[in-house]
Amino acid sequence: MTLESGEPKKPSQETLDALVRVVGEDYAIRDPEGMAPFLVEWRDRYVGKAALVLKPGTTAEVAAILKRANETRTAIVPQGGNTGLVGGQIPFESGHEVVVSLGRMTHVRDIDLDGNTMTTEAGLVLANAQAVAASAGRLFPLSLASEGSCQIGGVLATNAGGTAVLAYGSARDLTLGLEVVLADSSVWNGLKRLRKDNSGYDLKDLFIGSEGTLGIITAAVLRLFPKPAATVTPFAGLTRLGSAAAFFSRAYEQAGSALTAFELMPRLGLDFVLRHGADTRDPLRAPHAWYVLFELSSPREGDEVTRLAETLLSEGIEAKEIDDAVIATSLAQQNELWRLRELMSEVQKHEGGSIKHDIAVPVARVPEFIARANQLVELMIPGARPVPFGHFGDGNIHYNVSQPPSMDRTVFLANWETLNAAVHEIVLDLGGSISAEHGIGRLKRDLLRHAKQPLELEMMRKIKAAFDPNGILNPGKLL
Amino acid sequence: MTLESGEPKKPSQETLDALVRVVGEDYAIRDPEGMAPFLVEWRDRYVGKAALVLKPGTTAEVAAILKRANETRTAIVPQGGNTGLVGGQIPFESGHEVVVSLGRMTHVRDIDLDGNTMTTEAGLVLANAQAVAASAGRLFPLSLASEGSCQIGGVLATNAGGTAVLAYGSARDLTLGLEVVLADSSVWNGLKRLRKDNSGYDLKDLFIGSEGTLGIITAAVLRLFPKPAATVTPFAGLTRLGSAAAFFSRAYEQAGSALTAFELMPRLGLDFVLRHGADTRDPLRAPHAWYVLFELSSPREGDEVTRLAETLLSEGIEAKEIDDAVIATSLAQQNELWRLRELMSEVQKHEGGSIKHDIAVPVARVPEFIARANQLVELMIPGARPVPFGHFGDGNIHYNVSQPPSMDRTVFLANWETLNAAVHEIVLDLGGSISAEHGIGRLKRDLLRHAKQPLELEMMRKIKAAFDPNGILNPGKLL
Repeated sequence: MTLESGEPKKPSQETLDALVRVVGEDYAIRDPEGMAPFLVEWRDRYVGKAALVLKPGTTAEVAAILKRANETRTAIVPQGGNTGLVGGQIPFESGHEVVVSLGRMTHVRDIDLDGNTMTTEAGLVLANAQAVAASAGRLFPLSLASEGSCQIGGVLATNAGGTAVLAYGSARDLTLGLEVVLADSSVWNGLKRLRKDNSGYDLKDLFIGSEGTLGIITAAVLRLFPKPAATVTPFAGLTRLGSAAAFFSRAYEQAGSALTAFELMPRLGLDFVLRHGADTRDPLRAPHAWYVLFELSSPREGDEVTRLAETLLSEGIEAKEIDDAVIATSLAQQNELWRLRELMSEVQKHEGGSIKHDIAVPVARVPEFIARANQLVELMIPGARPVPFGHFGDGNIHYNVSQPPSMDRTVFLANWETLNAAVHEIVLDLGGSISAEHGIGRLKRDLLRHAKQPLELEMMRKIKAAFDPNGILNPGKLL
Repeated sequence: MTLESGEPKKPSQETLDALVRVVGEDYAIRDPEGMAPFLVEWRDRYVGKAALVLKPGTTAEVAAILKRANETRTAIVPQGGNTGLVGGQIPFESGHEVVVSLGRMTHVRDIDLDGNTMTTEAGLVLANAQAVAASAGRLFPLSLASEGSCQIGGVLATNAGGTAVLAYGSARDLTLGLEVVLADSSVWNGLKRLRKDNSGYDLKDLFIGSEGTLGIITAAVLRLFPKPAATVTPFAGLTRLGSAAAFFSRAYEQAGSALTAFELMPRLGLDFVLRHGADTRDPLRAPHAWYVLFELSSPREGDEVTRLAETLLSEGIEAKEIDDAVIATSLAQQNELWRLRELMSEVQKHEGGSIKHDIAVPVARVPEFIARANQLVELMIPGARPVPFGHFGDGNIHYNVSQPPSMDRTVFLANWETLNAAVHEIVLDLGGSISAEHGIGRLKRDLLRHAKQPLELEMMRKIKAAFDPNGILNPGKLL
């Protein structure tokens, strides 16, 4: 069975020619050099091969591609901005798969200011979607490191998260409707602009996060929000890791949905940023073992959020949850603080090899998770340097571990799977998830079989078989 | 095929005896008198028959019931508080179905204050869930007319909405995890307390809103929110229906998620309330054709929301969107205003027959929908009195039509299906939904076939066949 074997059939020359005719020669790439950028994961973790890269310009073309592919059992790898972190967008090494890149489909079909929705095609770059919303006086809140190149379709296929999930939710929560081309080439027009619709099963959420294995998302109705008119960004040094949960609760209880971000950072991560990041400086006088960077926003102008930040910080100091803090109110100051957080992932490469985990546990258990995982790392690889950081308020920690300074990089990285397995044991023991926001793709496919209940995998396989009986959509990914 | 025929097999005496043994004689009802309350829809719209009513006390008992039912092809009708408005919880007239009432499963398994979650069994009454959250210093925001008797399981099976959807979302948005017993008796433990989990297909949202046709929800992890510390409730007379959208936009842009309700009411509806509701009075000096009742909330004490309400009202008056308004700040005043809204459905029965619609359209198109539907009603049944009211901010209007005062009730009600069909044409033309929050159940099953695309129905049938191949779960409902 194609679904299980992961070994797609080699398409005939006739099939390839027919697929090229769908989009036209100008938008089909056959030569290896031209295809190369679509076949390489941006950190060089995966390098695949393809029979063809197609760049359809319309939903009808996507449907025509899938019709021919389904008839000929040709495997299709849908691709957005190629920024995924789990290899879901990269074909395997067989060279038999066809990459379908949605990047030409960038049309914004509708903006409804009263209804606070925006209907856009899948190829629109996230930053452009944000800009379109902003120029209409609205906020599209999804924000993540790759926003300059990732596309709406990929963002939805992976249910992307980022820094604004705390108040606004993940990509799933920001989507009201979808247009999807199914494996058999039928087009589902589910582009409803409705906040409430209880007429049947929730098909939309089945496609969101399915990583291109159930259908190809070609357009979406996205929710818009009032633009924040006042924002402050406090940065605080915690007295100890354990007080992060208490201080988060304090902030959430008083700010509610005005608490639009709450990020955790360790001193070592800040050290890396200060060492390798240009134009960075320590915001506080003395070093602290742990920091939180949070954000308070209001759709109204005025000093309401500044006063709230001051109250929270002084209460936090009094309760000995935090030691010291600064509040950034100007945009320049805020960008400076956010840059410390944003650089944290990137600078780790200057410190040698890094073994990564994208996990979530219940918020209250984040400190326990970090303590247990750090202890485990020290036992398994003495001298290795954990850099746990990320979206504390969502219970989502990027648990990255940098190599011991003196160790050989390759020797260190050979521990990747063993360390992953051990860290994931702790995550599962705490009721967590082995993939909080990056997805499963190719990287965590085998891990999924261990992390999920057999019943969950069975339900997923039934759905896959019902929607893509020939297994042509992104085979060997996720499931 | 059981799925299509809607005519379930008559269970043998042996099967019934075995089912009774699962829960014990004390929790099985066989006599018609004892079963009666479980077989009648509360407005007497549906009166069914059953072979048995079972009241399991544990998830294991639910699983044992479904094991036997699946083996013997016995149809199961899951039931919560029996408050549904579309007949989904009532068995058909064959007398061959078995009602499984979840009302004994009321245990609150966990409250996580740092993580803001509550894990509860399906039989907990919604008002009790709200009370448990409140006594822990948190808000469970789901609020609807039947909250005193509807249960969490039913609320999730129908993805219930209510008055707080605008800021907090529907039941779906308030749920992080589920425990579900599948048709083949396997138990899915999906009780994750995670805000972010991108490890595979979104199974949870498939069960939510599936009206008991894919599995029986036995427990859920619900989201909690900070308790509002300050709330104001303004009530305003609109200059005209058309200005509702502009005034809503104004309020939403400035209040953002502090706008926790925005309800529309027509003068005729208020007249009915003032005429038939005890201890009610008109909040404004002069009558207006249309009113909005909205709510602003903050997790912080202080007069912030009062000042915001004052600003919005004075701007609205200046922009000629509203004519006059009052602001309720005390709890007593707020309850008095909310009571006008809450009585609006109930008092209609004193004005003779009422033909109802629970529809949604994009927010900006609500005034257009009402204008077109009113025109249609006047054409079809001259003198009939439309009372369109409800959740304007969600685009969800309860478009109820009271009979002409002089008309015979039965003659009027004979127009039910014809009027529904005509009003739904307008809804679909405006990109709306024929069931915004009440679901499909038995009432709208035939309508669904017209309202949905054939492809949508096909996807739903595939999912149903994959999850319940013998069609034992609530057959003849929804699909």
